[in-house]
Amino acid sequence: MNPSAEIVSPSLDPDLATFLREIQELVDAELDRYLPSESLPPQQVHAAIRWSVFAGGKRFRPSLLMAVGESFSADRHNLLAPACALEMLHAYSLIHDDLPSMDDDDLRRGRATCHIRFGEAAAILAGDALQTLAFQIVAEDEKLTAETRVTLIQELSRAAGTPVGMVAGQAHDLEAESRVVSAAELEQIHHLKTGALIVAAARCGALIGGAPASELALTSTFASQLGLLFQITDDVLDVTATAETLGKTPGKDRRADKATYANLHGIDTARELAVATHNEALATLNKLNRPTERLHAIADYILTRKA
Amino acid sequence: MNPSAEIVSPSLDPDLATFLREIQELVDAELDRYLPSESLPPQQVHAAIRWSVFAGGKRFRPSLLMAVGESFSADRHNLLAPACALEMLHAYSLIHDDLPSMDDDDLRRGRATCHIRFGEAAAILAGDALQTLAFQIVAEDEKLTAETRVTLIQELSRAAGTPVGMVAGQAHDLEAESRVVSAAELEQIHHLKTGALIVAAARCGALIGGAPASELALTSTFASQLGLLFQITDDVLDVTATAETLGKTPGKDRRADKATYANLHGIDTARELAVATHNEALATLNKLNRPTERLHAIADYILTRKA
Repeated sequence: MNPSAEIVSPSLDPDLATFLREIQELVDAELDRYLPSESLPPQQVHAAIRWSVFAGGKRFRPSLLMAVGESFSADRHNLLAPACALEMLHAYSLIHDDLPSMDDDDLRRGRATCHIRFGEAAAILAGDALQTLAFQIVAEDEKLTAETRVTLIQELSRAAGTPVGMVAGQAHDLEAESRVVSAAELEQIHHLKTGALIVAAARCGALIGGAPASELALTSTFASQLGLLFQITDDVLDVTATAETLGKTPGKDRRADKATYANLHGIDTARELAVATHNEALATLNKLNRPTERLHAIADYILTRKA
Repeated sequence: MNPSAEIVSPSLDPDLATFLREIQELVDAELDRYLPSESLPPQQVHAAIRWSVFAGGKRFRPSLLMAVGESFSADRHNLLAPACALEMLHAYSLIHDDLPSMDDDDLRRGRATCHIRFGEAAAILAGDALQTLAFQIVAEDEKLTAETRVTLIQELSRAAGTPVGMVAGQAHDLEAESRVVSAAELEQIHHLKTGALIVAAARCGALIGGAPASELALTSTFASQLGLLFQITDDVLDVTATAETLGKTPGKDRRADKATYANLHGIDTARELAVATHNEALATLNKLNRPTERLHAIADYILTRKA
């Protein structure tokens, strides 16, 4: 497991830094407990699963779920299984997206992608099994009522699948690679590919905290704005960051003439768009009559992050 | 959608033939309702999903779930969503197993496999989305209580994943391709790769019918024996059937020196093993104090099927 060095930059609010480190440790320990051991057959698939899940990810989705849940006074331990499920869905999507027939990436977070390290068959099966396990651990989580578990699985599956989730976004993204993409279309691709799961993270936290419909809707709006902000700063960092801080080859998106906010609008306009989106997210938070300091700090962090 | 010509051979019990045709029509209509339309984006992935789901499959797992459920007096309409979920999980596994890095099959049920027809990326995403949708439709099925939905998702996910489900079986099978496999190991591979989902089908039917633990255990034993019988007759048919009745190139397993019951024991011993397994399955049924005529007829059909 990787320490949380990546996410604790000097400019990070100290309270948020502590929160993120706590969540990362909690989630990593729980993931370690959930994931099948490398000593059990099929060893190669289990090794591939752990290689990808413990690759130094920031646990952004689990942290968002936990922060939203705590804003709605949920007990942290009731948030843990769905937080791990989100990370499993995220890890599965990265493994499959990196495959040769998809984005064909050799490197992620500074090391070999799953199929480069374990072969394509093991990588496909590792992704498949991670998706299965995500739904399994929520279904088996006895800390939550059956009603809550069913609601969470509905949220996660809609966000992960098609036509309104992550798989639809990846398909749209692949299809759009070879042609000119409009600003509206780019936003739609990201809304599906990364936004849907980020919104699901926030909604799961709110649902476990018993949020009423009006506050659930505001939470979705905030998370959607945060997801957009995340994507814009990701695109900007891909242009401006060095390989060392980024842990992957920067500029890959630009070279491939891929649709990104930086490519479409230019780097300065993309930065302005990030600031405007950050402001909108904070305005949404203000409408929530809850303690949202941590969510505010997360939005600030996403705007100013260096990696 | 393909008519049920495949499963209605002249030797088939007329009552069972009617039952299988009814279930196939019911399940196909419901699958058509659940699967995203090809007119919705991403069109290619949705077309790939429908290509594979409506490829003329026999709907064996849904039929088993329905037959077991009816033995336990469950309402047929309460069995339909989980039956479709099983078929989605089965279809997803076939799409991914056929991929070049896995079994590398060009033909299935007499036509191009998903990746040959739609490309590898669309095939991977179609499989991914089918797995997601399987869990989603059970989570969303308002005809069942939340408790039942959670229990069914637990059953399906354990049977589909690793270390005790379908993904583990496929990994074990791939790993064993290049070496000599013992009879015990072959049984273990099939127990995971195809048996787990067949047992889950029967258990889901029994659970929806409110079966007590003792009867649930007998149902699992019966389904496990039926799954073994299914695999042995599959291996025998691969050697003895013609391409026309089989809808795929027969003998492929033998040529690849793959571990099968026919290769390991010889065709005559494999046939004897099928008869013995059929007898054991019927003995298990006799212990169930329920109307099991249809399950008996299904076991007979599996033993004597020609395709």
